[in-house]
Amino acid sequence: MSRFVAEVVVSLKPVVNDPQGLTVRAGLHQLGFAEVSEVRVGKHIVIDLEAESEAAARARVGDMCERLLRNPVIEDHTISIHTPEPR
Amino acid sequence: MSRFVAEVVVSLKPVVNDPQGLTVRAGLHQLGFAEVSEVRVGKHIVIDLEAESEAAARARVGDMCERLLRNPVIEDHTISIHTPEPR
Repeated sequence: MSRFVAEVVVSLKPVVNDPQGLTVRAGLHQLGFAEVSEVRVGKHIVIDLEAESEAAARARVGDMCERLLRNPVIEDHTISIHTPEPR
Repeated sequence: MSRFVAEVVVSLKPVVNDPQGLTVRAGLHQLGFAEVSEVRVGKHIVIDLEAESEAAARARVGDMCERLLRNPVIEDHTISIHTPEPR
């Protein structure tokens, strides 16, 4: 078994309204950042795990997304797997 | 002026306790994902903006992080800038 680090980005689907993003955009406009046209806010989840291979790690993290990490009705997710930096 | 897309990841500093991450880890363990050793949860913010250049976009988004998007006491941030896909 080897150690892997999975980065999961869970973001609202493009058709879903994002009140948090709208609020951040309004805040940025109020601070003078008028060049901002859109803001979307999602979750960035970093998971340290053990797995036989990178492919196995990706499959397990995919299962985690389906079972806990994302709501498939309104959210998309992307997974990237890398090996941890030596400590 | 050109359009750019900035991806900002705001994450808790490694020394800061992450109750949301601990809760997600506990949930994953309860679902049988015993291979997970650590989970950290952060924010993933996508900003569409106009700027003269990629460097200018990066500088402006850096200002946004300092002024609104992150709490410098407990959070780190990383910025990546890319050009939007043609629609």
